[in-house]
Amino acid sequence: MIILGLDPSLSCTGWGVIRVEGSRIAHIANGQVPTDAKAPMAARLATLQSALAEVIATHGPTRAAAEEVFVNKNPQSTLKLAQARGVVLAACGAAGLDVREHAARLVKKAVVGTGGADKRQVQAMLKVLLPGAEIAGADAADALAVAIADAHLN
Amino acid sequence: MIILGLDPSLSCTGWGVIRVEGSRIAHIANGQVPTDAKAPMAARLATLQSALAEVIATHGPTRAAAEEVFVNKNPQSTLKLAQARGVVLAACGAAGLDVREHAARLVKKAVVGTGGADKRQVQAMLKVLLPGAEIAGADAADALAVAIADAHLN
Repeated sequence: MIILGLDPSLSCTGWGVIRVEGSRIAHIANGQVPTDAKAPMAARLATLQSALAEVIATHGPTRAAAEEVFVNKNPQSTLKLAQARGVVLAACGAAGLDVREHAARLVKKAVVGTGGADKRQVQAMLKVLLPGAEIAGADAADALAVAIADAHLN
Repeated sequence: MIILGLDPSLSCTGWGVIRVEGSRIAHIANGQVPTDAKAPMAARLATLQSALAEVIATHGPTRAAAEEVFVNKNPQSTLKLAQARGVVLAACGAAGLDVREHAARLVKKAVVGTGGADKRQVQAMLKVLLPGAEIAGADAADALAVAIADAHLN
């Protein structure tokens, strides 16, 4: 089974692809999709749409997963995040993939063993779980963590 | 010039296309994209994405417009609306269109003459401004109103 983990955001969406066979997990690929903050919103979202469609076409995931979204902060931030998230979900839906959602605490718990783990602990654990993987950045790391959690939370 | 007006929402997105030549406005087409409330979110958003891409490919708008979004209500509603809106904006962006945003009051003022107009007044005025147009529903009417406002707010 191939799992696509996603960390959607307007400024930089992270993605990570892993292969799961029984209890074995292997890294396939990861990356980040930055968008130009000076470009019009529609153009930024179109960039995200086409980049995600390409990732999905290249790696042919069996399923996809993302963290549950926070909606209780700045409404303008929620709007931007949700617009990007909608584009990411639609790219998955267009490929026949549903996107499973996991709470941030469950993702940390699945990867590190505790829901209160910080980002550095998650990233350190990724190096253990996915030896040799070159991780494109913090957003790609979050996406890989979601993919690993999704494998555990079957 | 051909203007695409948009009223994005997850349950039913309205769209309307008008032709503008000088001060003359003519109706070209309008419609609504309902999505199945029982389907997974990613599938609903993918339905919206492909329907909007088809509308844009069919009518080749010169520019696009939508009402400014409200973000100060129920956060879960904002999330759903914004996810759908992101998909609609990305479909425009993929066709090289930016989406101009207009405040609801300015749309009503441009169509009816007063920012406090209610929905019935807007719909009655659409019948005057776009004689003979068969309007698919309330969401399509809102989309046509945004398109007309965009023509005036050049």
